[in-house]
Amino acid sequence: MFGVLRLGHRHERDKRITTHLALLSRVYGCKEFHLTVKDSSVTNSLKGVNRRFGDVTKIVENTKPKELVRVWKGTTVHLSMYGDRIEKLDEIDKNENILFIVGAEKVPPWVYNESDYNISIGNQPHSEVSALAIALYRMYGDAPLYADRHGEMTVIPEPRGKNVMTNSAREGI
Amino acid sequence: MFGVLRLGHRHERDKRITTHLALLSRVYGCKEFHLTVKDSSVTNSLKGVNRRFGDVTKIVENTKPKELVRVWKGTTVHLSMYGDRIEKLDEIDKNENILFIVGAEKVPPWVYNESDYNISIGNQPHSEVSALAIALYRMYGDAPLYADRHGEMTVIPEPRGKNVMTNSAREGI
Repeated sequence: MFGVLRLGHRHERDKRITTHLALLSRVYGCKEFHLTVKDSSVTNSLKGVNRRFGDVTKIVENTKPKELVRVWKGTTVHLSMYGDRIEKLDEIDKNENILFIVGAEKVPPWVYNESDYNISIGNQPHSEVSALAIALYRMYGDAPLYADRHGEMTVIPEPRGKNVMTNSAREGI
Repeated sequence: MFGVLRLGHRHERDKRITTHLALLSRVYGCKEFHLTVKDSSVTNSLKGVNRRFGDVTKIVENTKPKELVRVWKGTTVHLSMYGDRIEKLDEIDKNENILFIVGAEKVPPWVYNESDYNISIGNQPHSEVSALAIALYRMYGDAPLYADRHGEMTVIPEPRGKNVMTNSAREGI
């Protein structure tokens, strides 16, 4: 299983980026998405998608980040443009519990020191969303992208247009 | 070569998501990043990174999207949670000119009809940034993530901390 720790979330400024991080994490089957603050705009978006498309990811607010990294039973992986190249991820057993750590603008030095790995998804400035996306794809492959998450709604892949099945047995939820 | 067309960008609401899309595109060596409007906040962020880390991507504002898709000399690939599965990308020759199309909330029907491909990077709601990241990674692999973009600054991958080289010959740029 894996979890995600979002560091340095700033209300208003980061609400959409953090929501994208949470939804991406959910697609990959993330169990716990941790925020170090409380932000109902992120939480409500995630809950809405969980309700309609399948309850996958729990959001945990007000996490104390140092404590989480210290007690994590498994491997901690900080994504940063300064870290080791992506191939380093292949050392990690994907059946372990992995905590992916993604920062916003400024990441404090303890994160670099206390994470088991610092991995750069590219050495140029881009996006914590794309860094996490590529890391998860490298670790877990295609299959989770199309996993049935047992929600009210299921999208059937189509070359043109939209095909959405509603699971009526669950409509009342 | 490849380009990116960002559809439906809304000022203020989308400025950070679109900036993340532009920076991710740049990391992969995107030649032209098209916006259908003008937004100096996106443009200035991209130009700043081009200046410091290497001039890679040209931003084109006020693009007429239908026209671009129609005149594009190569393959057009719309990313959408409703499209064909990711393996379909493997049909496309990566040496062709590819235009990746990413929408915001509502994508008009002509995009589904006129794109050569509609590809879903997962059939669950997530993020156009993660969809584009995974598509680019699938198409072009790891190498562009660490390519030398000949900027003022070069980051050297390190297991701990930060190692940034300043290319003094270029400092005056």
